[in-house]
Amino acid sequence: MADEVMLLNSGLSPFGMRVRIALAEKGVHYQSKEEDMNNRSPLLLKMNPVHKKIPVLIHNGKPICESLIIVQYIDEVWKDKSPLLPSHPYQRAHARFWADYVDNKIYSFGRTACLSTGEAKEGARKELIECFKLVEAELGDKPYFEDETLGIVDIALIPVYSWFYAFEMFCNFSVAVECPKIMAWVKRCMEKESVSKTLVDQHKVYNFLLERRKKLGVE
Amino acid sequence: MADEVMLLNSGLSPFGMRVRIALAEKGVHYQSKEEDMNNRSPLLLKMNPVHKKIPVLIHNGKPICESLIIVQYIDEVWKDKSPLLPSHPYQRAHARFWADYVDNKIYSFGRTACLSTGEAKEGARKELIECFKLVEAELGDKPYFEDETLGIVDIALIPVYSWFYAFEMFCNFSVAVECPKIMAWVKRCMEKESVSKTLVDQHKVYNFLLERRKKLGVE
Repeated sequence: MADEVMLLNSGLSPFGMRVRIALAEKGVHYQSKEEDMNNRSPLLLKMNPVHKKIPVLIHNGKPICESLIIVQYIDEVWKDKSPLLPSHPYQRAHARFWADYVDNKIYSFGRTACLSTGEAKEGARKELIECFKLVEAELGDKPYFEDETLGIVDIALIPVYSWFYAFEMFCNFSVAVECPKIMAWVKRCMEKESVSKTLVDQHKVYNFLLERRKKLGVE
Repeated sequence: MADEVMLLNSGLSPFGMRVRIALAEKGVHYQSKEEDMNNRSPLLLKMNPVHKKIPVLIHNGKPICESLIIVQYIDEVWKDKSPLLPSHPYQRAHARFWADYVDNKIYSFGRTACLSTGEAKEGARKELIECFKLVEAELGDKPYFEDETLGIVDIALIPVYSWFYAFEMFCNFSVAVECPKIMAWVKRCMEKESVSKTLVDQHKVYNFLLERRKKLGVE
């Protein structure tokens, strides 16, 4: 029986982008189902009853939730092509550490920096810049975070490239100016079709955040 | 060369307890070094410069940080005994999902419920009870979360048993009354030496939290 693979996703989600990049790297064919997060489908509520969030990968009828857990699952199931985690336990732990760091820090500070005002905004902006500088130091002169090939840390971080224009406009933070090595890494990642075909246009994210700011009363 | 294993730890940390249980399950001998979290050692700052937190496992001179990442590392390195994650990718993803849930929800709501007042306390208390009920439903009638053997979800959750008395005293929440299946599971875990020798006395955690409440001005 051929594998049946479906992805419950929402187009602008950086977490959904991670899963799409991982599936593309592995050459897995799948059906993508767009979720309206203001009116979640019965399928999403059934497949992720705990968090009720996208992305959810449904593989032969079984759901896998949480983007970094899904990326590890994809790596373990389709293991013959494009490894996404290193093979040595120490390097695997190291990759998990940085993927987790990106997950817990960059996205939450980025969101707060773009969607709040006053002290909350300024605090998140400073933290965001510090996080980027730390991540840049970790990258160093390596082509990718786990060295020669695109892996889970790259996949965790690269979707945030779609937010770079929003960072400039809302937070006066230019990644290109502050973190040149990260920008060079972004260009390297964007040469891969798995990434360039997945990431959404920065203006789309900017317009989405602009709407959110209006709804939240952030000026 | 024999493995050199050192654990930087702080006695009351539930995250440190996770690592101790995992090492005991695998029968790994190690040296434990107690950290004073008010005056962190140069070794801790060197080994975990990003988060500056315990636990840190130092294996042949190399640091591994973040408790659930350490547990996975231990499982991958000492793989011949007491598997802590299932072997099938789907079940591994499922175990990671629940370990992550426990990590993100139970500990943070538990801490807030014990260390705050008013609406923040009441909100966290309600969330904590809901989380426990959800986790109890996930456990169901299985002996352990991943069925027949103690695994990463059990290891993630069981240290919170040391907080049960604090939950009763500070939050008027009795796990024994509200979640009988969780209590039966606690007893099952406590029959294992790896757990019973690791968990600290509930009154120690209570007294520690009492001190913290005084410092924070919570009455």
